[in-house]
Amino acid sequence: MRAPSPTPTKPRVAIVGAGFAGLEAARGLAGAAVEVTLIDRHNYHLFQPLLYQVATAGLTPEDIAHPVRAILRRQRNLAFRQAEVTGFDLAAKRVITSTGEVPYDYLLLAAGSDTNYFGLTSVAENGFGLKTIDEAVAVRNHVLGMFEQASQEDDPVKRRTMLTFIVVGGGPTGVELAGALSELVYTVLVKDYPRLDFSEARIVLLQATDSLLPNLPQDLRDVTAETLRKKKVEVEFGQTVTGYDGQTITLKNGESLSARSLIWAAGVRASRLVDGLGVSQGSLGRAVVLPTLQLAGHPEVFVAGDAAHIDENGRPLPMTAVVALQSGSKAAGNIQRLLCGQQAETFLFHDLGSLATIGRNAAVGQIGRVKIKGLLAWLLWTVVHIVRLVGFRNRLFVFWSWFWDYILYDRSIRLITRE
Amino acid sequence: MRAPSPTPTKPRVAIVGAGFAGLEAARGLAGAAVEVTLIDRHNYHLFQPLLYQVATAGLTPEDIAHPVRAILRRQRNLAFRQAEVTGFDLAAKRVITSTGEVPYDYLLLAAGSDTNYFGLTSVAENGFGLKTIDEAVAVRNHVLGMFEQASQEDDPVKRRTMLTFIVVGGGPTGVELAGALSELVYTVLVKDYPRLDFSEARIVLLQATDSLLPNLPQDLRDVTAETLRKKKVEVEFGQTVTGYDGQTITLKNGESLSARSLIWAAGVRASRLVDGLGVSQGSLGRAVVLPTLQLAGHPEVFVAGDAAHIDENGRPLPMTAVVALQSGSKAAGNIQRLLCGQQAETFLFHDLGSLATIGRNAAVGQIGRVKIKGLLAWLLWTVVHIVRLVGFRNRLFVFWSWFWDYILYDRSIRLITRE
Repeated sequence: MRAPSPTPTKPRVAIVGAGFAGLEAARGLAGAAVEVTLIDRHNYHLFQPLLYQVATAGLTPEDIAHPVRAILRRQRNLAFRQAEVTGFDLAAKRVITSTGEVPYDYLLLAAGSDTNYFGLTSVAENGFGLKTIDEAVAVRNHVLGMFEQASQEDDPVKRRTMLTFIVVGGGPTGVELAGALSELVYTVLVKDYPRLDFSEARIVLLQATDSLLPNLPQDLRDVTAETLRKKKVEVEFGQTVTGYDGQTITLKNGESLSARSLIWAAGVRASRLVDGLGVSQGSLGRAVVLPTLQLAGHPEVFVAGDAAHIDENGRPLPMTAVVALQSGSKAAGNIQRLLCGQQAETFLFHDLGSLATIGRNAAVGQIGRVKIKGLLAWLLWTVVHIVRLVGFRNRLFVFWSWFWDYILYDRSIRLITRE
Repeated sequence: MRAPSPTPTKPRVAIVGAGFAGLEAARGLAGAAVEVTLIDRHNYHLFQPLLYQVATAGLTPEDIAHPVRAILRRQRNLAFRQAEVTGFDLAAKRVITSTGEVPYDYLLLAAGSDTNYFGLTSVAENGFGLKTIDEAVAVRNHVLGMFEQASQEDDPVKRRTMLTFIVVGGGPTGVELAGALSELVYTVLVKDYPRLDFSEARIVLLQATDSLLPNLPQDLRDVTAETLRKKKVEVEFGQTVTGYDGQTITLKNGESLSARSLIWAAGVRASRLVDGLGVSQGSLGRAVVLPTLQLAGHPEVFVAGDAAHIDENGRPLPMTAVVALQSGSKAAGNIQRLLCGQQAETFLFHDLGSLATIGRNAAVGQIGRVKIKGLLAWLLWTVVHIVRLVGFRNRLFVFWSWFWDYILYDRSIRLITRE
């Protein structure tokens, strides 16, 4: 007699990260004859493009986060695991996590990116990043707390320092944050603090290069700077920050600025998890992948989203949500192709254009060759962001929040929470 | 020539606490010829009766908190001051705060209450209270975190301990929390964790006396226990907790319970600020006041809400929102009477009845002599709580959240936040 042959097990796919790329890949594997383990340190998917609205009291954290288990509840071939990934054993095909090892036959690394302080530890320690819910709420608490403190401060010099808010970085995050901050301060808080002199308040946007939103054409960059200046944001070009001690920002040109608040939106780099892979890394720490999103020498390992250095005509694709969604989807497709004995396909990015909002009725963008700005761009931005949000409840509540704030010039959730 | 006579200044009223009593008093002084300073350590008014819904992922913190400055924006005679009150100098008529002293001609102490652990320091250290937003979010994070941990735990003994939730206290907070927890676990999380065996989960409500909701008639108490048991809550009477080390709850009868979660809803006591007044204190640390809510020997000092021991036929009034609202209003009226040279009036409490919800379509209550229960009581409870919420946006969003969760058996904000 023979021992019964072991039950044939399905191939195991491990996905690290439940951001845009990881979630899209997980969905792409729905119905496939695989066992998927999706690993994330949080139990929710976070819609990072709207974090700046949490930081400026426009949305609640709950509006832009959605439980992973709720999203993937109907997907029978998937198990979610909340754990911190600490490393990989590519030879033994295992993901090492804070709660044990996860073996795989195929791996998708979609670990996203972290704030890049470019080695400025004083800025990392005393400034604020804007990549997590905790950071966004910390910014909200801090900005509102500065107004409370200023309202009790008799020394005008100290008061001005409390009311000066420095945003570093002229990309979409910095521009959107500066615009939202201006609306919070000059349309809402100005009514909350009738005894404060708002001419003492300053919002300064520092950009190292000579224009904002470098991915857009020059005329739209000019519109962006002009719109921000109309909103009382001081836009300063050619300014590179060299340090910040919590009170004074030092600049490369030797000048300095007194401010109790610095929010760093000047760059990101690939998740530190990429460093631990031991593979070739491109700019900003990203893992260099083949055109099929596979790692050279590891056809069973895929990288997608911000963690991947995906070459397109000699330049890496930008670290955006759209690239993450498309590359996550392609990675899932390629895993299924390999399972069927087919070849992995080359990833081709379909550029859908870009949009950035500067505030009420104001946005700029480019869709293909068409440039748009003003109310039309703002409406399109609003619709796109509501549609893209995961979870119907989130869509509904974000819509209501925006509608409410738009009509009433309000930010009802200007709460200082977390002691 | 004479020096110009000083500008006659208006009498200064300091109000400590922006809860139900303090806020109602501040509003009562709108239009009065006084300068009001309202002091609170938070920049928001918190609707404490719904904290348990934040703890069970039914509402966001932002739904039940509203900025004080938004509420009182139109009140020209009022300044808000976010500060921690550290003491009082009744002789010199000054409130001492973390940001300096506030002189007053009239003082209203409306500092509310804190969780009362009755000296059980091990419970205070290892259990959860439910009096602040931070505590409610900590409960939410912990409960959801236990399910995530249990889903990765192979040892059935450890898993059961993770899935056992002990609620201590059979008053309204304990009953409402246990009911809401049951719905979170058995209607929502059961769908999130298809591979967990929910017969391993336990929700235990421990009550020291022999009935729940002691303020209600016996038949409604029985309905309450029966309804909770139908929702799989184990209701245990005559159980007094003596200690908790984070793993094991010890009881007065020598028994013990293994559980990683203990939520303490077994009592409150007046704010520690009352202890610093140096006045006569009644039960639960409350300041004994005259029938006019004044302190004996200090006609310029009023106490209202949970901080006040207000005698009614030999018994103190309960520490409820309704008592706080009415006593805060009366204190404001009496301050105005004193300003006009009139006598302060006696505070008479108008009992509006009480209501407690046990969950979906289930509540109990008494309005005057009329006892109500079931769907009708639940609808009344829902309407009363939405109407009482401060801020129209909060009303709208709470209504939407409840409607959504009711229709879909959902708790969309089951997020583990704050690292």
